[in-house]
Amino acid sequence: MPRVVKLAVIPGDGIGPEVIAEAEKVLDAVTAGGDVSFEKTRFSLGAGRFLETGDTLTDDDLSAIARHDAILLGAVGGVPGDPRLKDANIERGLLLRLRFALDHYVNLRPSKLYAGQAGPLAEPGDIDFVVVREGTEGPYVGNGGAIRQGTPHEVANETSVNTAYGVERVVRYAFDLAERRDRRLTLVHKTNVLVNAGSLWKRIVDEVAGEHPDVAVDYLHVDAATIFLVTNPGRFDVIVTDNLFGDILTDLAGAVTGGIGLAASGNINPDGAFPSMFEPVHGSAPDIAGSQKADPTAAIGSVALLLDHLGLREEADRVSRAIEEDIAARSGARSTSEIGDAIAARVQT
Amino acid sequence: MPRVVKLAVIPGDGIGPEVIAEAEKVLDAVTAGGDVSFEKTRFSLGAGRFLETGDTLTDDDLSAIARHDAILLGAVGGVPGDPRLKDANIERGLLLRLRFALDHYVNLRPSKLYAGQAGPLAEPGDIDFVVVREGTEGPYVGNGGAIRQGTPHEVANETSVNTAYGVERVVRYAFDLAERRDRRLTLVHKTNVLVNAGSLWKRIVDEVAGEHPDVAVDYLHVDAATIFLVTNPGRFDVIVTDNLFGDILTDLAGAVTGGIGLAASGNINPDGAFPSMFEPVHGSAPDIAGSQKADPTAAIGSVALLLDHLGLREEADRVSRAIEEDIAARSGARSTSEIGDAIAARVQT
Ligand SMILES: CC(C)[C@H](C(=O)O)[C@@H](O)C(=O)O
Ligand SMILES: CC(C)[C@H](C(=O)O)[C@@H](O)C(=O)O
Repeated sequence: MPRVVKLAVIPGDGIGPEVIAEAEKVLDAVTAGGDVSFEKTRFSLGAGRFLETGDTLTDDDLSAIARHDAILLGAVGGVPGDPRLKDANIERGLLLRLRFALDHYVNLRPSKLYAGQAGPLAEPGDIDFVVVREGTEGPYVGNGGAIRQGTPHEVANETSVNTAYGVERVVRYAFDLAERRDRRLTLVHKTNVLVNAGSLWKRIVDEVAGEHPDVAVDYLHVDAATIFLVTNPGRFDVIVTDNLFGDILTDLAGAVTGGIGLAASGNINPDGAFPSMFEPVHGSAPDIAGSQKADPTAAIGSVALLLDHLGLREEADRVSRAIEEDIAARSGARSTSEIGDAIAARVQT
Repeated sequence: MPRVVKLAVIPGDGIGPEVIAEAEKVLDAVTAGGDVSFEKTRFSLGAGRFLETGDTLTDDDLSAIARHDAILLGAVGGVPGDPRLKDANIERGLLLRLRFALDHYVNLRPSKLYAGQAGPLAEPGDIDFVVVREGTEGPYVGNGGAIRQGTPHEVANETSVNTAYGVERVVRYAFDLAERRDRRLTLVHKTNVLVNAGSLWKRIVDEVAGEHPDVAVDYLHVDAATIFLVTNPGRFDVIVTDNLFGDILTDLAGAVTGGIGLAASGNINPDGAFPSMFEPVHGSAPDIAGSQKADPTAAIGSVALLLDHLGLREEADRVSRAIEEDIAARSGARSTSEIGDAIAARVQT
């Protein structure tokens, strides 16, 4: 019996729909004629939907999405400074709400510099690492508040919450991943300042390291890690870090590996209790929306991560190889759909 | 009557004493024969002192230091993983305690790529900006805690505290600085996630911007800011940001401008209620201590900031120019003291 995967598709705002169209093109091409078919449901969510209906993500949306096997998301967020979005926070209310509600505790963000590809670094060396960013804790929990808002006496707090439960599960995932890669793991934190959260992360990494004697474990403060990302990115294999540090490091990692237009990501619930969500790291870039200028490679790379997550290794590899070949062959400027067409053509062979 | 400046000197650990020796050499050279003389008091503080006496910074140390006009610090911190330092936190107990107790609310960190200098970027462009990092609030306040420590049920929190009072004074400083520079100011924060602290920072910047209609104001999320620091650092003039984001951005900025060995900083109390403290951004690097391998340029650059802070503009400029000339003339490897000698020779002419 053919396997049917129920896929929720959230194209979103700005360049989201454009890059998702190419991602779907490649997904269709790589699975054409195979045993697995994708049954897609499209969800209209993001700034566009908010402006139309005032809704960001209703409970009904959330439970409908949760009934799928996986989610493919483009990008969400309106034009910065749009007064009609003043009281909306699409990022928190939609993107982060999905990550938290669907317990996406692993935010997986691979960084690779492909052959033939120019990045901003003069001597990039071999760049091939994965950031395992915690996705459900840290300063992202929204446990902050303010008093005397708008006055000269305002005090605004943000609380980062870190639990042994939450840290252990993501650290275990990172060690398992390191075992399947080059067996090097770097914890990035700021233990000398954030002593409470830092001690917890350090303790858990030390404990889990005991079960993985073949994985070489390293520690870097987040400030030092940014230095190495530009001076010696080859030193990294698997980086495990908290939600905020992971956010910062993966944008920087995207930049040093030739641009955020190539950076794919997965928001993963490894337990399978909830559908995982795959999305490019970049945002909705409303300034270039509709102009076919966006690079859909990050969205297509997210399809590779999606296929891998679903156990469709062979298909995932074909997409990854097609991306790699396409990048190696790049010369002049191409439109969003030209890049999608080229990669789709390569996966079929 | 000749002016006497009382200077507290804290050489510290690792390469600290080596780079401070060169910084003092240059300070002596640039002030020789002038109207201002420096009366120096040396404080033995850091991991070395802790190992000897068990003290990090006593109340007596603190009040003795506070009676000076300014402080010059090398670097503090022992060998990572030294078991005898397990329960010490030199960074918090010494460096951060000084910054907080002496109300160093402006952490000033200029970044410049000098002529003739190679950095990690293939096309660095013109890099010349200053990060104004808040120094007394944010996640650095130490308002965290943990329950059930060491157990699978541990919860470890960190609280970032941000006040209108604290944000406004550093934002005002940053705007004043922008007025004396290229009149461009970028606020860096993470307003879409840290909504409470972010709204406060945004509001204050908007308010103070109203008094500076000639300063062009921009906003970037911290993740996006790291991208621009490697793809287009020329877009920055003055960056104003919180304590933690400033920590991260300035290490990255040091890396893209040719190395943390050149990055100087001032921990400034602009009100003059307490002595300001000048130090290289780099750490104590115990692995190369005593080998004359450290670059003293960052420490010498910190002397330029110190002189400028004391109103000794002409002397500050001479040190800055000497550094610039020395960097332009660099060829082979030189020892720490050779670099110090070369810069000291240039300031005298
Ligand atoms: C849009 C924003 C909330 C999000 C984050 O901070 O996680 C984004 O920067 C990302 O990295 O996916
Ligand atoms: C040593 C550490 C506490 C310090 C900081 O985080 O501020 C350092 O990284 C710096 O930037 O001066």
